[in-house]
Amino acid sequence: MDFSKRAFLKTTIDLSVSAVVSPFAAAAAQITNHTTKASKGVFKKIAIEEAFATPELFDEWSKLLATDAEREPGFQKLYKPFLSSPATKGIRDRLIDVGAGRIRDMDRHGIDMQILSITTPGVQVFSTNKAIDLAMKSNDQLAEFVCAYPQRYAGLAAVAPQAPDKAARELERSVKDLNLKGAIINSHTQGEYLDQPKYWVLFEAAQALDVPIYLHPRTPSKEMIQPFLSYGLEGAGWGFAVETSLHAMRLILSGVFDEFPKLKFILGHLGEGIPFWLPRIDSRFANRTWTMDALEPVKLRQKKPSEYFMDNFVIATSGVNWPPALTFALSVLGPDRILFAIDYPYEPTAKAVEGIENTPLSDADRKKIYQTNAEKLFKLKLT
Amino acid sequence: MDFSKRAFLKTTIDLSVSAVVSPFAAAAAQITNHTTKASKGVFKKIAIEEAFATPELFDEWSKLLATDAEREPGFQKLYKPFLSSPATKGIRDRLIDVGAGRIRDMDRHGIDMQILSITTPGVQVFSTNKAIDLAMKSNDQLAEFVCAYPQRYAGLAAVAPQAPDKAARELERSVKDLNLKGAIINSHTQGEYLDQPKYWVLFEAAQALDVPIYLHPRTPSKEMIQPFLSYGLEGAGWGFAVETSLHAMRLILSGVFDEFPKLKFILGHLGEGIPFWLPRIDSRFANRTWTMDALEPVKLRQKKPSEYFMDNFVIATSGVNWPPALTFALSVLGPDRILFAIDYPYEPTAKAVEGIENTPLSDADRKKIYQTNAEKLFKLKLT
Repeated sequence: MDFSKRAFLKTTIDLSVSAVVSPFAAAAAQITNHTTKASKGVFKKIAIEEAFATPELFDEWSKLLATDAEREPGFQKLYKPFLSSPATKGIRDRLIDVGAGRIRDMDRHGIDMQILSITTPGVQVFSTNKAIDLAMKSNDQLAEFVCAYPQRYAGLAAVAPQAPDKAARELERSVKDLNLKGAIINSHTQGEYLDQPKYWVLFEAAQALDVPIYLHPRTPSKEMIQPFLSYGLEGAGWGFAVETSLHAMRLILSGVFDEFPKLKFILGHLGEGIPFWLPRIDSRFANRTWTMDALEPVKLRQKKPSEYFMDNFVIATSGVNWPPALTFALSVLGPDRILFAIDYPYEPTAKAVEGIENTPLSDADRKKIYQTNAEKLFKLKLT
Repeated sequence: MDFSKRAFLKTTIDLSVSAVVSPFAAAAAQITNHTTKASKGVFKKIAIEEAFATPELFDEWSKLLATDAEREPGFQKLYKPFLSSPATKGIRDRLIDVGAGRIRDMDRHGIDMQILSITTPGVQVFSTNKAIDLAMKSNDQLAEFVCAYPQRYAGLAAVAPQAPDKAARELERSVKDLNLKGAIINSHTQGEYLDQPKYWVLFEAAQALDVPIYLHPRTPSKEMIQPFLSYGLEGAGWGFAVETSLHAMRLILSGVFDEFPKLKFILGHLGEGIPFWLPRIDSRFANRTWTMDALEPVKLRQKKPSEYFMDNFVIATSGVNWPPALTFALSVLGPDRILFAIDYPYEPTAKAVEGIENTPLSDADRKKIYQTNAEKLFKLKLT
C-alpha cells in the first residue's frame, strides 16, 4: 500500500455520529467548521515531543548495557544496536545536536518551537544516585539550550522516579530556577508504575507548580516483555504503546486523579490508542460488571475512566500523522485536548506537518492544535 | 458521562479525509452513501461472536483451578470467582442455555442467528489429552445445538492447539462431519502463540477447508501478566485486547500469511485496536526503520503489515458498540471487512444492535455488516 497516494472518496459523513450515544458531545461541540485542508491562518507551530540526548547519557547507557544484561531486557535489545550501529548514527547525531542542524530542520518545515525532552528511556534505567545526578545535569544542559534559543526551544525536565522525593524537588528546581515547563517520565521505572503511592509526592509537586507530565513510551518492563521480544515488537512499532497505555490505565484506575484532580498528563501517539477504547473501558470498569464484582472489591472512583481521560490527559500527534485517526480523535476529544508533535528526530518533520495539513480542520482548530493548546499548557510566550 | 445522552453536532466532515495519504482508499471507496440511521432495508441479523459453555467444561475448569494455581495466573484470577460468585450466576446460566432462553433474547432484539463458540479460554488451559477430549465433546454438543435450531445457530469448532496435528484433524471433522463453520482459538495456549511453525498444520487445514479462525481474547499469559494483575486490568477491560492484538501482530509479522495467503482470521472488538495503528505499524516495521535495522535481520515479508491486515483479517463489532469507532473503522477497512457481533451473554444484545443502528450507514452497508459478510465468510444459507 502506498501512503503517498492521494485518492478522494466522494461521500460525506455527518459528524453527529461522534456525539450520538456518546459522552463526548461537549468536547466535540467545540469543533468549528471542518472545511479547509492546509493552513491558511497565521499562527505558530509548536512541536511538543521532541527528543535530545547528551553525550554523557549515551556514555552512561553504554556502560550500563555492558554491565547489566538482566534487569532491562527491552533496553538491552533495542539500545545496544542503537548506540553502536552505523545505521543509527544519523539519529544519534540529531539527538545530540540542539543547535544549528535542528534549527535548520525546524526552519525548513516552518516549526517555530520544539519542546525538548531527554530521549527515552532517559535516566530511569540507572541506579538511584546515578539517575539523580544525570537528571540534574541533563536539566542544566537543557536550560542552556533554551537560553541560547529562547524563542525556538522550551524544555521538559528529566526526573528520577527512583527517588520520588528528590524527583519532586528536581521538578521544582527545573520549573522555578531553570524555567522548564513540566516533566517527562518514560513510563515504567524498572518495572514500577507511577500509580504506587510512593510516587505521589511527584504529582503533588506537579499539581502545585501547575505543570504537566509527559508520559512517554519505552520498552515494556522485564515483567511483561517476553512475548514482545520477537519481530521487534518490544519497540516503537508495538510494545511502546502497549507499555504506555497500560501505565495510563493504571493511573486512571488507581484513584490518583481523585487525589490530584488538576494533574495533567500528556500522551503521545494520539493517546497511545486509549481514545479508541473509552466507552468499552467505562463499561468494563466503572459499571462494576461481573468481571469487577467477581474479582476484587475495587474501590469505586469518583468518576468514570473516560472522565479522568478527558479531564487529566491531553494527547499529541507524534508518530500518528494519519488524518482518519486524527479526525476520529478530534471527534471524541474535541480540539482542546490535541497538540502537535513530531517525535524529532525519530520521525520526519515533513510527515508530521503533512498529517495536520491533510486533515480537514478549521483555522481555529488548526491554531489550537499547532499553537494555542501548547501555549496554555506550558505557559509559553511566543512573540 | 452519560452514554445514553443523545446530542448532535452541527457540522459535516468530508470523508475524503480517510483516503488522503492513506492506503485504504480502495476499501473506503466501497462505502455507499452514509445517510441513514436505523435499519430500513429487509435483512437478517447474524451475530458472530456468541459464547456458550457446557457443564462439563465448568466442572473441568473448577478442577483445574483447584489443582494448578501456578501455570495460569490470569485464569486463576478471573475464573475462580467467575465460576463461584452469585454475582455471575446469571451469566453462567446463559452460557449453558443454548435453547429457549437464548432464542427468546434473540427474538426480543431481532437477532436471526448466533454463531456459537465455546467461551474463553475454552480447552486451551488443559493438559493435552484432556483438551483434545473436551474439544471433541464440545464440538459434538455444539453440532447438536445447531441441529436443533438450524436456522438460528451455526458454530465454530473448539480445537486444542496443544496437539497441532490433532487440532487440524478435529477442525476437518468439525467442518466436514459436523457442519461447523470454522474454529475459535482463545489467543495464547499456555504462553505459546500461533506464529510458531508447529501450529501451521492447523492453518493448512483451515485454508484447505476455506474456513476462518476466530482469534478470541483471553487473559495475558504468565509471561506478561504481572503488570496487569492490578485493578482488574487482566480482564476484558484491557488485558484481553492487549493479549489478542499482540497475538495478531505476531501472526502478521511472522510471515504466516505468505505461507497461507488465503487464511482468514476474525478479530472481535473492532479489531482489538489494530485499525487505529495501521500506518504506524507500516512505518515502523515494513520500512525497516532504525529500530528494525539495528535490532535483528527480520526477514522482509512480501507485503506491508497493513496489507496482511486488510487481506487476512476481518473484524467484528463485539463489545465496541460505539458509532465514532465504527465509523472510523469503516472509513479505513470499508464495509466488507466488518461483521456484527454481540458477545452474548457478556454484553447486552440491545446495546450491540443500538451501536449499528446509531451509526450512519447506507442500507447496503448495514446489510453487509449484519448479514451478507457473515453469509459469505461462513457459507451460511439462511432462508
